[in-house]
Amino acid sequence: MRKKILYGGDYNPEQWLEYPEILKKDIEMMKEAKINTVTLGMFSWSMLEPEEGVYNFEWLENIIEILEASEIEVILGTPSGAKPTWLGNRYEEVRVVRADGVRELQGNRHNFCTNSPVYREKIAIINEKLAHLSLKYKNIILWHISNEFGADCHCELCQKKFSQWLKEKYKTIENLNREWWTTFWSHRYKNFEEIHTPMSIGEMSVTALDINYRQFMVKNYIDYFNFEKASIQKITKHLPFTTNYHGTGNHNMNYREFSKHVDIISYDSYPEWMMKNNLDVAFETSFNFDLMRSTDLNKEFMLMESSPSSTNWQSYSKLKPNNLLSLASIQSIAHSSSSILYFQIRQSRGSAEKFHGAVIDHSGKSSHRVFREAKRLGGELQKLNYSFEKINSKVAIYYSWLNKYALERTQGPRNEGMDYYQNVLEIYRVLKSKGLNIDIVFEDSKLEDYNLVVFPMMYVVEEEIAEEIKKYVSNGGTIVTTAPVGYVNSDDLCHLGGFPGHLKDVLGIEIDEIDALTNEERGKVSYKGKTYTSKYFNEMITLCEAEPLGVYEKFFYKGSVAISENIYGLGKTYHIGTLLEREGLYAILEDVLEESGVYGAIDNNNLIYNNYLGRHYIFNFTETIEEFKFKGKEYSLKGLDYIIIED
Amino acid sequence: MRKKILYGGDYNPEQWLEYPEILKKDIEMMKEAKINTVTLGMFSWSMLEPEEGVYNFEWLENIIEILEASEIEVILGTPSGAKPTWLGNRYEEVRVVRADGVRELQGNRHNFCTNSPVYREKIAIINEKLAHLSLKYKNIILWHISNEFGADCHCELCQKKFSQWLKEKYKTIENLNREWWTTFWSHRYKNFEEIHTPMSIGEMSVTALDINYRQFMVKNYIDYFNFEKASIQKITKHLPFTTNYHGTGNHNMNYREFSKHVDIISYDSYPEWMMKNNLDVAFETSFNFDLMRSTDLNKEFMLMESSPSSTNWQSYSKLKPNNLLSLASIQSIAHSSSSILYFQIRQSRGSAEKFHGAVIDHSGKSSHRVFREAKRLGGELQKLNYSFEKINSKVAIYYSWLNKYALERTQGPRNEGMDYYQNVLEIYRVLKSKGLNIDIVFEDSKLEDYNLVVFPMMYVVEEEIAEEIKKYVSNGGTIVTTAPVGYVNSDDLCHLGGFPGHLKDVLGIEIDEIDALTNEERGKVSYKGKTYTSKYFNEMITLCEAEPLGVYEKFFYKGSVAISENIYGLGKTYHIGTLLEREGLYAILEDVLEESGVYGAIDNNNLIYNNYLGRHYIFNFTETIEEFKFKGKEYSLKGLDYIIIED
Amino acid sequence: MRKKILYGGDYNPEQWLEYPEILKKDIEMMKEAKINTVTLGMFSWSMLEPEEGVYNFEWLENIIEILEASEIEVILGTPSGAKPTWLGNRYEEVRVVRADGVRELQGNRHNFCTNSPVYREKIAIINEKLAHLSLKYKNIILWHISNEFGADCHCELCQKKFSQWLKEKYKTIENLNREWWTTFWSHRYKNFEEIHTPMSIGEMSVTALDINYRQFMVKNYIDYFNFEKASIQKITKHLPFTTNYHGTGNHNMNYREFSKHVDIISYDSYPEWMMKNNLDVAFETSFNFDLMRSTDLNKEFMLMESSPSSTNWQSYSKLKPNNLLSLASIQSIAHSSSSILYFQIRQSRGSAEKFHGAVIDHSGKSSHRVFREAKRLGGELQKLNYSFEKINSKVAIYYSWLNKYALERTQGPRNEGMDYYQNVLEIYRVLKSKGLNIDIVFEDSKLEDYNLVVFPMMYVVEEEIAEEIKKYVSNGGTIVTTAPVGYVNSDDLCHLGGFPGHLKDVLGIEIDEIDALTNEERGKVSYKGKTYTSKYFNEMITLCEAEPLGVYEKFFYKGSVAISENIYGLGKTYHIGTLLEREGLYAILEDVLEESGVYGAIDNNNLIYNNYLGRHYIFNFTETIEEFKFKGKEYSLKGLDYIIIED
Repeated sequence: MRKKILYGGDYNPEQWLEYPEILKKDIEMMKEAKINTVTLGMFSWSMLEPEEGVYNFEWLENIIEILEASEIEVILGTPSGAKPTWLGNRYEEVRVVRADGVRELQGNRHNFCTNSPVYREKIAIINEKLAHLSLKYKNIILWHISNEFGADCHCELCQKKFSQWLKEKYKTIENLNREWWTTFWSHRYKNFEEIHTPMSIGEMSVTALDINYRQFMVKNYIDYFNFEKASIQKITKHLPFTTNYHGTGNHNMNYREFSKHVDIISYDSYPEWMMKNNLDVAFETSFNFDLMRSTDLNKEFMLMESSPSSTNWQSYSKLKPNNLLSLASIQSIAHSSSSILYFQIRQSRGSAEKFHGAVIDHSGKSSHRVFREAKRLGGELQKLNYSFEKINSKVAIYYSWLNKYALERTQGPRNEGMDYYQNVLEIYRVLKSKGLNIDIVFEDSKLEDYNLVVFPMMYVVEEEIAEEIKKYVSNGGTIVTTAPVGYVNSDDLCHLGGFPGHLKDVLGIEIDEIDALTNEERGKVSYKGKTYTSKYFNEMITLCEAEPLGVYEKFFYKGSVAISENIYGLGKTYHIGTLLEREGLYAILEDVLEESGVYGAIDNNNLIYNNYLGRHYIFNFTETIEEFKFKGKEYSLKGLDYIIIED
Repeated sequence: MRKKILYGGDYNPEQWLEYPEILKKDIEMMKEAKINTVTLGMFSWSMLEPEEGVYNFEWLENIIEILEASEIEVILGTPSGAKPTWLGNRYEEVRVVRADGVRELQGNRHNFCTNSPVYREKIAIINEKLAHLSLKYKNIILWHISNEFGADCHCELCQKKFSQWLKEKYKTIENLNREWWTTFWSHRYKNFEEIHTPMSIGEMSVTALDINYRQFMVKNYIDYFNFEKASIQKITKHLPFTTNYHGTGNHNMNYREFSKHVDIISYDSYPEWMMKNNLDVAFETSFNFDLMRSTDLNKEFMLMESSPSSTNWQSYSKLKPNNLLSLASIQSIAHSSSSILYFQIRQSRGSAEKFHGAVIDHSGKSSHRVFREAKRLGGELQKLNYSFEKINSKVAIYYSWLNKYALERTQGPRNEGMDYYQNVLEIYRVLKSKGLNIDIVFEDSKLEDYNLVVFPMMYVVEEEIAEEIKKYVSNGGTIVTTAPVGYVNSDDLCHLGGFPGHLKDVLGIEIDEIDALTNEERGKVSYKGKTYTSKYFNEMITLCEAEPLGVYEKFFYKGSVAISENIYGLGKTYHIGTLLEREGLYAILEDVLEESGVYGAIDNNNLIYNNYLGRHYIFNFTETIEEFKFKGKEYSLKGLDYIIIED
Repeated sequence: MRKKILYGGDYNPEQWLEYPEILKKDIEMMKEAKINTVTLGMFSWSMLEPEEGVYNFEWLENIIEILEASEIEVILGTPSGAKPTWLGNRYEEVRVVRADGVRELQGNRHNFCTNSPVYREKIAIINEKLAHLSLKYKNIILWHISNEFGADCHCELCQKKFSQWLKEKYKTIENLNREWWTTFWSHRYKNFEEIHTPMSIGEMSVTALDINYRQFMVKNYIDYFNFEKASIQKITKHLPFTTNYHGTGNHNMNYREFSKHVDIISYDSYPEWMMKNNLDVAFETSFNFDLMRSTDLNKEFMLMESSPSSTNWQSYSKLKPNNLLSLASIQSIAHSSSSILYFQIRQSRGSAEKFHGAVIDHSGKSSHRVFREAKRLGGELQKLNYSFEKINSKVAIYYSWLNKYALERTQGPRNEGMDYYQNVLEIYRVLKSKGLNIDIVFEDSKLEDYNLVVFPMMYVVEEEIAEEIKKYVSNGGTIVTTAPVGYVNSDDLCHLGGFPGHLKDVLGIEIDEIDALTNEERGKVSYKGKTYTSKYFNEMITLCEAEPLGVYEKFFYKGSVAISENIYGLGKTYHIGTLLEREGLYAILEDVLEESGVYGAIDNNNLIYNNYLGRHYIFNFTETIEEFKFKGKEYSLKGLDYIIIED
């Protein structure tokens, strides 16, 4: 069990082999900053195998030895994140075919075909060599497979796999035709072989085809991850495995599925600090930490990458002011992260990311402000013990990548964007600002441990999750749903007999019609004597067993029900038939929290609270002094600062 | 001769063959709503010919029999709107080649090559079978060929046809080189075979090439329509033929040409109700009804498709409030439509249009608001008799698709958009709001029946139309032209000797220069002591025989003539050398109407008036009560309502 | 030595061979307008070689004879600007391959591959014939090679040349890998042959690859120009050579390099008169004249193309009011131009540019306003003598196309645009409005003749220019630099040891960090007691030998140094560590001008001053009367007018 927090980040000595004095200075500066961990080998293929079949691991072994001597641990990356030029040029099949039908030329990164036998054959040889090497050094602690998975491919190899995968899923072509409703516009298939992936130059009108393709791409990446893992485990199984998740919940990779295959969940976090309001950014960062770590609540969670200062590929490379680096880093620790790792220890001198923040910059000086901040943080981290433990949360929010695919691809009720991610984030923010730990739950989660579970925009409802919800509410749980809820199944096929399909009983309502609002339009909903603003959709609700809780105050359906509540078994359900703006969400969710017996730890919406390992963290991401009361005592916290209160 | 109004719409029983109880319920609900007509067979190819050469018409015959028993008539569609997967996959030639040179993959709809021999061969077999079938059932009343024609193609088959067509049109390559002015930039052709269609990866600088390509594509679709028609008429000629026009006047299909080939003009109308100001939408809808029906004033006009509620492929799926469905539907009847037909009777359960409005929704309930509205309208329609008769109009507006192609493709005087359609629509609105029936006239129309004809933005003027205008004005007619007028011929070749070319005499002016205004700029024009706003262009006018009527009040040409009037023979002509905004158009056109002896029926610009079959329709598309005087009597009409006053 | 100003422009008699009366009238009208020069042969290939190997030069000889008889001189263009249809259709290799991998089809212009042996072979035959022809006529005065060079190509021929060129430049692949820092993301090359040009479907992440490709394309065009020149010089060397530069400094062609190969610098100037504020347009036009002529200060400068009225390919074809044509034309004369040449003498009747302004319009009338203006200007020009002489400037601004490529392609500190051209222009405007002649200097310029040289956004600093700067300042010169300065070398490789690299000593500072501002953000900088607005970047400056001159008043680095000054040898340097808006630039540059002993000739920022051949030109491009003092005397100048004061 890990006892100390890992501190360090990506390090690329292979870029500096001609500069031995720089390599030496780097180690000294790492020690000065209390760095104890570096990631090696990411993007090193062209230095490990400079020509096909010619290998050179000497530089890697040299640096590992030096690091070992300096008591710095190593996360060892496999180099498949970018293909070497000789490989991409010689073997066409390793390069992806884009949605416009063009096979890419060699270049860039993350753009190999996961189904290429050649790519798999070549990386397996490298990985076996790395596995042998890993047996020689005690300071290697973790395998990091490839880098930030995610490119789509439409090549012939993928076409064949896609057909096979569909066949395994649907068994008969008639099942698929029925589920995908292909009779519409005469798009019926006779056999699985004639199904082509959705491309901009081809079929774009069958939404279930898109949804299935997205699921297939996730499956490809998991397969590929497992292939790399197996190539190492042929030699040795003594180390755990991870790969770095990236982006936000908005990314198309289904990390819930992926987390069934990694040993440690790790995440690259690049919030837009200083570009947007920092408090907004901090809530979003908090959400993404909770989302990523919740993909498996029983696995260790690591911050694999972050920037010590600016991020050069964002629109603007904004500096992190003093304190913000600590504040942002400790925020991940408060979400159970066992590490603060940076991209990068030393700035690369040229090419795409030379202006990305680094612990050591182009000047190489230890007097540099960013180095001094990183060193100060290294000191702070020494004070914190660490042991992995499941975070205790009484409230959960439902997130579903499949639901996201379906909402994005379906046509109507709004084609100007559904913003699933943003709307879930808004729910998260309102709840989080009450001073709570929050878990994220998924299609296959158990709900029994929570007092309250919120299901925002749960457009897709399959029977399995509906059953879990009914059991949970029957036994006393509380849920909240928002529009749109229960329209379709996982193939975007509408529920016959009306919406919300399998959730009709538990919500006690029927949804008759959906009126979309334009981007500029706002609705009005009254709730307990006050009027709140809504947006995006208004559902026309017919109450069956439910009671009215709010009504529309605008449009031709003025006076009809907008919000309903229902008692089901020992529990309670709420449905908000529209998307409320923040003030309305505060009003309703505050009441619902109270009814479900959940009480927040602090009383200031501008602060962010976390509770982990007996420590209460309170973060102030604003620039002003904020007051708050905690366990009856009054506190004051200055801007860009945090406080840890021990139990 | 049709006596009753057709009421119903597209019905797709082939999607529901596994749900006999639903099919049964559908018929019951149709009867309840007084539905008397359905369209079958659109997009049914994959159910009629599930494999190449394997045919199944049984399901179709079954449903026709059931409908016959229920006294519901059938419009029979040919299924070429979407190609079945086996066809698209097996025969490359049936798939269009896009302007970027890519041949599309199988998928979507409306995207077949009209010149493909394979496609024609396959559809002819189906059509012959449908023709035989049509002889068996009395309730089949109309052939509906394919669906919403319109995709472009640049394949080798089309290239060859394009060369042939140009050769027939221009006879010698020297004629073409002269007309297209190809010596400019050295683009001369040596023979017709080396002319390639205009593609984004090729020739984009010869405007006449584009204009001719657009005309060629129109000709292809008409040819294809006639091919399908002939394949049916080989078996039987007992029924009339139509195909559904779609879009607005802004669409690239030349429906004037197309109407020479159909027996009944039919139109799919999908206005953006509730998304924009409903009154604006209603005037535009009115214009498009008048445009489509005027493409042949002697043929029956049908509303082939419309939505009973929302339209899911628009940006926002807005519901139609109560009354709006009736109001919008009766508006088509007032424009002589013999039908109210919906897409769709029953919502498809999945794929692209599952959220499109339907008479019967996913819940299948007859208590559903939309069903109740449709049923109410079914009742209203019973009260109206019908017989086709030419609408009586004293005012006409000129519209030319060729003019539209030329204005869109030419370079200068404005490359930020010419908005031909919008500017014609504005003229229409100003005249229509006076309480008039309005016809649309075309290049080959006779003008003698009208008191006034307006020619907005008549950039292209050929000798033929100029002669018709001169004859018409000589005999006492009145015309109004607006900038730009008479710059080029139909190959976008400038008139030598100055503009307005063939119209110099009749307008009595010369146009020396054209100053373009930016999108933000506005001009000022004084007319009868008041100043009005202009936009887009200002023409510098030299008066020959004409008199000045308005002058520019802004820019370096302040004080020079902006509006002129001329007496020619027994008639009168007006030229507005700019594009006036609404207030100015009201002022001038009001005077012109009076001078030409045309008097509107009502006096409220917020109401829309139509006169047909001895009925005076007055529509209020606003949300407020509107007062108006008609034949000396005062009326009041509430929001979203209409009134019919019999002669 | 030229004594008279050339007046005339492009003339295309080949478009009018069927209209002898028009050709005759044209000559008469040219004489009437005092036109003494026309350019022939541009875009005439399809008339000179209508079929492969079939030549027809008769029409050309005829017109030259007629012009000779009318005492009109001829600039003879080679026709390679547009390929004839037969050539493009028959030989694929002559058509460029775009960055998306598609080889263009035949069509358009300027889009041939400069490396195509076929294209070179064919044009050489034409050029030799033209060269023979040139010996027959005394009135041919200048060769004009091709037209407005500039299309990129990625074909196989270019790939091979690119590899060869890189090999010549870098000698070994190791040098290239080091310079391009290809170890980053494993993009190392094993040999030059495997390097592919940067394409949107391939490598887009190696910035040095892009920069080198841009340089390679410049080199291709110069090679091609020299090839055409040589093909003529095989026959005769009696005439000088030019090609028409186009666009602004923002164009990707490196005209500094190009000017080493032409005999006369010529430029096509198409400012957006009347579309934007005319004074802004006039300053920009002035800058571009200075930029183009400065590419070789010892060569004659010509205005090769301009519009006598509107420019039809701009967003809006705005007319030039009376006076503006003279004003804009004389402005080029004040910048040492030996010519006023128009595109075009007669408007082409059809195709792409039929609405482009011309001396003779479609009406063909000499009473036409534009013709009368052109004729009036022809008269004015008669009064001006001409002889080429180097302009005398005490102030220079540094411009570098390489710097532009690097700033545009690098990632960070801002990816929302660096606007190199606009920011240099802003510096130019502030200095120019003081009433000064200004030269532009380049990487290989000598600085000794100037009192002050400003280096805006000099992101790339190589040792050679740094040495020149040091020598110049040591000897008493003054320089001003602005952010970003001295970050990288010419392969976008960061300077180790910190920024500003080679300029550390001369500026006496180090730049520690760069904070990017968003497009909406503005910084505050105080200077001599006043506060000014900054944008884009703020550099954190550490003073070494320099003194502080201004500090930041905003953000977390409030109070730190923003502007520094340093004494170096006998001279002085200033660094502005941000981009100041106009008011701040006025304040600082005014002080710097005074300190460096430069005094402007006039005192009105709304007027533009030039001094050439002993004439002092003052231009008023506003619409209002402007007062100014010159040599102690007070003047008043009305709107859209100019005055010439002789020494």
